[in-house]
Amino acid sequence: MRAVKSDFRFSYAMRVRFADTDLQGIVFNGNYLTYYDNAWTEYFRELGLTYNACLERGLDTVLARTTIEFKSPARFDDLLEVFVRVSHIGNTSIVFDFEIYPKGDERLVGTASSLYVCVDPKTLKKITAPDWLRSAVSKLEKKDFYDSLGD
Amino acid sequence: MRAVKSDFRFSYAMRVRFADTDLQGIVFNGNYLTYYDNAWTEYFRELGLTYNACLERGLDTVLARTTIEFKSPARFDDLLEVFVRVSHIGNTSIVFDFEIYPKGDERLVGTASSLYVCVDPKTLKKITAPDWLRSAVSKLEKKDFYDSLGD
Amino acid sequence: MRAVKSDFRFSYAMRVRFADTDLQGIVFNGNYLTYYDNAWTEYFRELGLTYNACLERGLDTVLARTTIEFKSPARFDDLLEVFVRVSHIGNTSIVFDFEIYPKGDERLVGTASSLYVCVDPKTLKKITAPDWLRSAVSKLEKKDFYDSLGD
Amino acid sequence: MRAVKSDFRFSYAMRVRFADTDLQGIVFNGNYLTYYDNAWTEYFRELGLTYNACLERGLDTVLARTTIEFKSPARFDDLLEVFVRVSHIGNTSIVFDFEIYPKGDERLVGTASSLYVCVDPKTLKKITAPDWLRSAVSKLEKKDFYDSLGD
Repeated sequence: MRAVKSDFRFSYAMRVRFADTDLQGIVFNGNYLTYYDNAWTEYFRELGLTYNACLERGLDTVLARTTIEFKSPARFDDLLEVFVRVSHIGNTSIVFDFEIYPKGDERLVGTASSLYVCVDPKTLKKITAPDWLRSAVSKLEKKDFYDSLGD
Repeated sequence: MRAVKSDFRFSYAMRVRFADTDLQGIVFNGNYLTYYDNAWTEYFRELGLTYNACLERGLDTVLARTTIEFKSPARFDDLLEVFVRVSHIGNTSIVFDFEIYPKGDERLVGTASSLYVCVDPKTLKKITAPDWLRSAVSKLEKKDFYDSLGD
Repeated sequence: MRAVKSDFRFSYAMRVRFADTDLQGIVFNGNYLTYYDNAWTEYFRELGLTYNACLERGLDTVLARTTIEFKSPARFDDLLEVFVRVSHIGNTSIVFDFEIYPKGDERLVGTASSLYVCVDPKTLKKITAPDWLRSAVSKLEKKDFYDSLGD
Repeated sequence: MRAVKSDFRFSYAMRVRFADTDLQGIVFNGNYLTYYDNAWTEYFRELGLTYNACLERGLDTVLARTTIEFKSPARFDDLLEVFVRVSHIGNTSIVFDFEIYPKGDERLVGTASSLYVCVDPKTLKKITAPDWLRSAVSKLEKKDFYDSLGD
């Protein structure tokens, strides 16, 4: 079931670039995966964890699977708000949910649900999602992510 | 269940560009959606239907949903083979399946399954998948797509 | 002769995206042209002129020539400041100068000088740079752009 | 003075992707730098030197300056021919000239002239352009690049 804006405790505002449009006059669908990737980066910044900080602590992540829905078009110069939340932390995986709306508008532009796998930055082998990550996410999401060890 | 190469009757070879890589030294995940989009274009060319030819016949399509899996990395200058097939034509929708392998290699790089909706090029309202499209796809896929009217 | 930061009255801050990097671990050189394009958009916003507002007033512009210099690398997550100014308005042309620095840093990342031609949005034929544009630029740059009719 | 097609001994054919277009219905100008970069890769392949082969021999190159001219638009699905030649090898630098035409057409789409600097792959310090590179280029261009030591 789709979330509503109030289910999200973090969002990131971004401007559609001229470069992102295509000959249909709207944002090229291939660009949304990059939009979600950017929002993911900003979510980690909100956690107090830059990408480099995670690497130094021995955590990298790889995107394993994503499902993207395209609901309505976005256009050049639109100010978009990308809502991000962690919906699940498994033994070695993290699921992020995303929704995009024009800022201040209820028209849903698109959604994504992305499964990331925790890996060792050097070997790229799967590792257990570290406790400090569970802790930081639990704090931001105001929800317990400690015992979701299923995956 | 995942297809095997022999389930596909069309593939498209492409070279990974320097521009497509990221700081991890591999193809940036956001680029795969564009790779699948390119392969989609080439599939239509194989059908004898360029994008402009479809527009002239009153058909445009919009991507409504895609699920992408990332199986193993691709790198700069890799020659990739993108396998494409239509797996379903509904009343107004078409489902494309994609798989990417390094050319001549059995290592799966990634897969996608994408649901496109047929629309009128002017109004962008949903339209029924036209018979000439069913016919062209049936011929290429050597499989009957005339009665899959569920969707 | 190269400008110094104090020669610019407008700058635009932007974050380097993961997507913008390449396998050398730095921003892919092909992305800088897009960075300068974004900064151009923001300069017009500062003038009080969005792209659509210009179109409605009968002005579109096309990039005719650009010279880009690459001075030092930028990296993922760097906060960059793109300085923009108009250095010349000819009869039908506008020259923009750009410089990029990491925010709060004196290390020059790159420069560009770009010649845009004013065109009619419908016919794409060259038109004279409109007075309202000269006026808006003169006001922002605190410099007279009314008599530079040489082109 | 601009070259003519017959001045080039190498060209590379490429298809304009849907992703490369913008809301003006033409190739976004920011993409041309990537087009020239791809053509550069293919020129080295023609020399028998892949990027990795150069790295192994102790040569990397960085783009220091490029001047790009935009002459006429290219559109989705256009088959473009990118002509490439080396016009100068200095002490530590190499100048590449590029021209793009629609395949089989005399309409010039754009040009670029790009100055690359030879660097050590590990230290990224400037190095002298190696003799094996001068030799390979001289052979392809049927022109002597051994004594152009000015830079």
